Amino acid sequence: MADPRFFTVAGPFPLSKLARISDGELGPGADPARLVHDVAPLEAAGPNEISFIDNRKYLTTFFASRAGACIVPPELARRAPPEMALLLTTEPYRGYALIAQAFHPNPTPSGVVDPRAVIDPSASLGDGTEVVAGAVIGPRVEIGKRCLIDANAVIGLGVVIGDDCMVGAHVSLSHCRIGHRVVIYPGARLGQDGFGFAISRKGFTSVPQLGRVIVGDDVEIGANTTIDRGAGPDTVIGNGCRIDNLVQIGHNVQLGQGCVVVAQVGISGSTRVGDSVMIGGQAGLTGHLCIGTRARIGAQAGVMRDVAADTTVIGSPALQARDYWRQIVVLKQMVRRSKVKEPEA
Amino acid sequence: MADPRFFTVAGPFPLSKLARISDGELGPGADPARLVHDVAPLEAAGPNEISFIDNRKYLTTFFASRAGACIVPPELARRAPPEMALLLTTEPYRGYALIAQAFHPNPTPSGVVDPRAVIDPSASLGDGTEVVAGAVIGPRVEIGKRCLIDANAVIGLGVVIGDDCMVGAHVSLSHCRIGHRVVIYPGARLGQDGFGFAISRKGFTSVPQLGRVIVGDDVEIGANTTIDRGAGPDTVIGNGCRIDNLVQIGHNVQLGQGCVVVAQVGISGSTRVGDSVMIGGQAGLTGHLCIGTRARIGAQAGVMRDVAADTTVIGSPALQARDYWRQIVVLKQMVRRSKVKEPEA
Amino acid sequence: MADPRFFTVAGPFPLSKLARISDGELGPGADPARLVHDVAPLEAAGPNEISFIDNRKYLTTFFASRAGACIVPPELARRAPPEMALLLTTEPYRGYALIAQAFHPNPTPSGVVDPRAVIDPSASLGDGTEVVAGAVIGPRVEIGKRCLIDANAVIGLGVVIGDDCMVGAHVSLSHCRIGHRVVIYPGARLGQDGFGFAISRKGFTSVPQLGRVIVGDDVEIGANTTIDRGAGPDTVIGNGCRIDNLVQIGHNVQLGQGCVVVAQVGISGSTRVGDSVMIGGQAGLTGHLCIGTRARIGAQAGVMRDVAADTTVIGSPALQARDYWRQIVVLKQMVRRSKVKEPEA
Repeated sequence: MADPRFFTVAGPFPLSKLARISDGELGPGADPARLVHDVAPLEAAGPNEISFIDNRKYLTTFFASRAGACIVPPELARRAPPEMALLLTTEPYRGYALIAQAFHPNPTPSGVVDPRAVIDPSASLGDGTEVVAGAVIGPRVEIGKRCLIDANAVIGLGVVIGDDCMVGAHVSLSHCRIGHRVVIYPGARLGQDGFGFAISRKGFTSVPQLGRVIVGDDVEIGANTTIDRGAGPDTVIGNGCRIDNLVQIGHNVQLGQGCVVVAQVGISGSTRVGDSVMIGGQAGLTGHLCIGTRARIGAQAGVMRDVAADTTVIGSPALQARDYWRQIVVLKQMVRRSKVKEPEA
Repeated sequence: MADPRFFTVAGPFPLSKLARISDGELGPGADPARLVHDVAPLEAAGPNEISFIDNRKYLTTFFASRAGACIVPPELARRAPPEMALLLTTEPYRGYALIAQAFHPNPTPSGVVDPRAVIDPSASLGDGTEVVAGAVIGPRVEIGKRCLIDANAVIGLGVVIGDDCMVGAHVSLSHCRIGHRVVIYPGARLGQDGFGFAISRKGFTSVPQLGRVIVGDDVEIGANTTIDRGAGPDTVIGNGCRIDNLVQIGHNVQLGQGCVVVAQVGISGSTRVGDSVMIGGQAGLTGHLCIGTRARIGAQAGVMRDVAADTTVIGSPALQARDYWRQIVVLKQMVRRSKVKEPEA
Repeated sequence: MADPRFFTVAGPFPLSKLARISDGELGPGADPARLVHDVAPLEAAGPNEISFIDNRKYLTTFFASRAGACIVPPELARRAPPEMALLLTTEPYRGYALIAQAFHPNPTPSGVVDPRAVIDPSASLGDGTEVVAGAVIGPRVEIGKRCLIDANAVIGLGVVIGDDCMVGAHVSLSHCRIGHRVVIYPGARLGQDGFGFAISRKGFTSVPQLGRVIVGDDVEIGANTTIDRGAGPDTVIGNGCRIDNLVQIGHNVQLGQGCVVVAQVGISGSTRVGDSVMIGGQAGLTGHLCIGTRARIGAQAGVMRDVAADTTVIGSPALQARDYWRQIVVLKQMVRRSKVKEPEA
C-alpha cells in the first residue's frame, strides 16, 4: 500500500508471527501460516493486507472491508466479514503500531560520514553513525552509536548525544545533552538563549543564560519546535516525552516523564510539569507554575495558576473542566433568553 | 520607489498597456501614450508613478496624492485630483497586483546548478532549474523545469516537484509530491512523520507514518510552516491554497482548492477542509472534523465540531457568528448591570 | 556553576569591582577585597559564588542559602544569613545581569571566515567578522565589523548588517537592513514575501511585495520567528525591541522602540505598535491597528481594535483589563447561582 517511491516493506510474515509481535491472539479459524504482505487502512486493504479497527465510528467501513486480516478488539470478533482472519487484542491500535513497525522498520543509519559534512576534529562519533552532507558538527561534540545526523543539521560546541538518535535536517542544537533513542524533527531549535533580561528605568539588560537543555531517553521533538536553555538551572525534558511541531518551551521549564505536548503549545519560563501530563494544541502556560502528575490541559487553554494532579482544565483563563462546561451552558441559556427580549445583537 | 538594492524594475509602460494588463479602462482625458515608470503607494507616488485606491479609509490621502496615475473604482473617478490620469476598474487591488507584476516580474531562475550544491546522481533536474549552493538533493528526486531550489534547502529521497516551483532557503521536503508553480517559503517543513503513537498502559508505541504529502498546483506555503505526512492516507493540499507562516497541518488533513490559511493556524489530524475555506490567524481545529465549502473560521477560533458550508464561526469554543456576537453583547450588558449592584470587581 | 563543557568563566573578581559593575553598594562588614568566582542560583551557590534575590517568593531559599555573597534590595539586608556578604541595590536583577555578564561575557567572534562558507565575491565583510562553515552569503551583501554569521545561515542579495551582530545557525535573511548589535536566533526568517494577494472572482492574484524589513539597533529576534517584508512601505522593528521565539510579524507592521513581544504572538499586516509596548505570549493583533505607547496586551489576547497609550487589554476579543476581570467575576457568580437552580451541567 505505502508508496514504494518512499517506503520499503519487510515481510511477508505469517499470521502467527504477527500475533506474537502484537501480543494478540488468532481468532477462530484463522490459519497461523497465512502470509500477510503489508498493513493498510480498512477501506484500502486487500486480501494480502492486515488492517485494524479501534473506533466504532468506522464500523461500516469494517463491515465492507476486503482486508485479508484485521486486528480487532474481542467484542467485535463476531461481527467481522466471514472471510477476514482476525487477530484479537484489547489494544488494537497498539497492535497495529507494532505490526506496522515490523513491516516498516526505521531505516538503519548507513554509518557513512559524507565528506561534505563539516566535522570538527575534536568531535567524536560512535560506530554506525551516519552524517549527511552539509551537517556542521562543532568542537568536542560527542555523538553515540547508530545515530543519523541529517543534511544541514548544526550541532554546536560540546553537545552530547546518546545512541540511536535521529537529528533531522536543519535542526540546530547547542548547550544540550540528549539521551538515547531521541528523535528530533527538522528545524527544531534546542539550547539557544532564553528570553532573559532585566527591565529597569535604564532599559533592558541581558541576563547571560548559563544553563543547558537536558533531554531524556525516548523523547520526540517536533518540527520547528524551540526549546531554550536554562538561565542558571537547566531546561529538562523527561524520558519518553512526545512534543509536537511548533511548540515553544521557555528557559528552566521542567517536563516530567511521558508528557504529551501537542502542536503550538507555549510553556513559559520556570514552569514545572509533572509526569504523564497531556497538553492540548495551542495551550499556553504562564511562568513559574506547577502542573501536577497526569493533569490534562485542554487545547487553547490559558493556564495562569497551578494545576493539581489528575485534574483537567479548559478555557482561557483555564478552569476546572466541570466549571468550564457549566459556564458554557450558562452562557448559552443567557443568550437564549436575551433573544426574546432583545432580538437585535 | 522600490529599493533598487533589492528590486529591479521593468518598463516604462504606456498607460494603454497598463489598462490592458489590468483589465481596466482609461479615464476621460488620460493620454494612452503617457509613460509610467513604476508603482508606488498613494502617499509616496510622484508624477511618473501609478498608485491605487480601493479603501475609502484612504480618501484623504487620495485627494492629496501627487501620483501621475491611479487605479480607481469608477465611482471615485469624479473625485480624483485634476492632474491625475485614471485607470478605471471595479477591482482596483487586483488591477494594481497585475500592474505591479508587470513592473516587478518574478526573477527567472538562472538555470545554473552551483557546484557546491549536493545532488545525488540519481536525481533529475528539468531544463532551466537553478540550484543554489548548499542545497542537498537526495536519491531519485525529480524536479521539473525552471524551478529555483534556494540555498541550503534539503530535498529527501524520492520527492517529486513540478515545473516553475520555488523552494526557499532552508526548506526541508520529504515523502511528498509537489505540483506546478508552487512557492514554498524559507524554513517550511513538509513530509516529516505525523504525531502518531498508540497510548496504552505499556507506554507509547510509535505508529509508522506511511502516507505522503500531496501538494497541488499554484499553492503557496509560508515560512516555518509544518505539514506532516499522512499516517496511511495522504495529507493533501488542494490547488491554489495560500498558507501563511508558522501554520501546523497534521497528518491526513485534506485542504480543498483555494483555501486561505492565515498565520499560526493549527489543523489537527484527519480533518477535511472543503474548497475556498478561509481560516483566520491562530485558529485551531481539532481532529477528524469536516469543514464545509466556503466556510469562514475567525481568528483564534477553537473549532471542535463540523462546520457547515457557507457559514462563519468565531470564538473558542467556536459558535456561529450570530450567536458569538450575541454572547458578547449579553456579557457586556451583564457586566454593566453588575457595576451598579457590585461596584468592586 | 555553569557547565564548563559549554561555558567559560572570567574572574575571579573582588566584591569592590562587582559593586562598581552593578551600581551597587557593599553591605556593612563586607570585605571589598573578597574574591568571587562565579554567579549561581541561591539554592546552588557556595561560599565562592554570588547570587541574588528580588522576589519574596524565594525568601526561605535565601535564608538557607550558602552563597558567599548576594545582591539584595536594601530592605532585605537585615534578614540575610550572617556569613553572607551583601551587595545592596534597588535593582537586584539588573545588578545580577551585569555581574553575570562580567563573569560570562559574550564570546568575541574569531574573525575567521571558514573556507567552506560560500561568499559571493561582491559581498563585503567588516574586520573581525567570523563566518562559519555552510553559511551562504549572496551578491552585494554588506556585513559590518565583529559579526558572527553562524553555520548554514543564508543571507540573500543586497542585505545590509551593522556591526557586532549575531546571525544564528539556519537564519535566512533577504530584503532587509539590520542595525548594530542585533542578535538573530537560529531559524528566524526575515524578509520573505508577505501574505499578499488580491481576491476576486477570477481567483487570487499575487501582489509583488516591494518593501523591506528594517531592523534598528540592539534588537533581539527569537528562534524560528518570521518577519515578512513590506508590501510597498517597509516592515520596521524599532531600536531595542526584544522579540521571542515563533513570533509572526506581517508585512508593513511597525514596532516602536523597546517593545517586548513574547513567544508565539502574531501581528497582522500594517499594524503600528508604539514605543515600549508589551505583548504577552500567543496574543494576536489583527491588521491596520494602532497600539499606543506603553500599552500592555495580555497573553492570548485577541486585539481587534486600536489600543490607547498606557492601557492594558486582556481577553479575546480584548477588553480593558478592568472590564475583563469584571466579566470573569460576573461569569463566576452566574455559574454559582445556576448550580442551585440547575445542578446538571
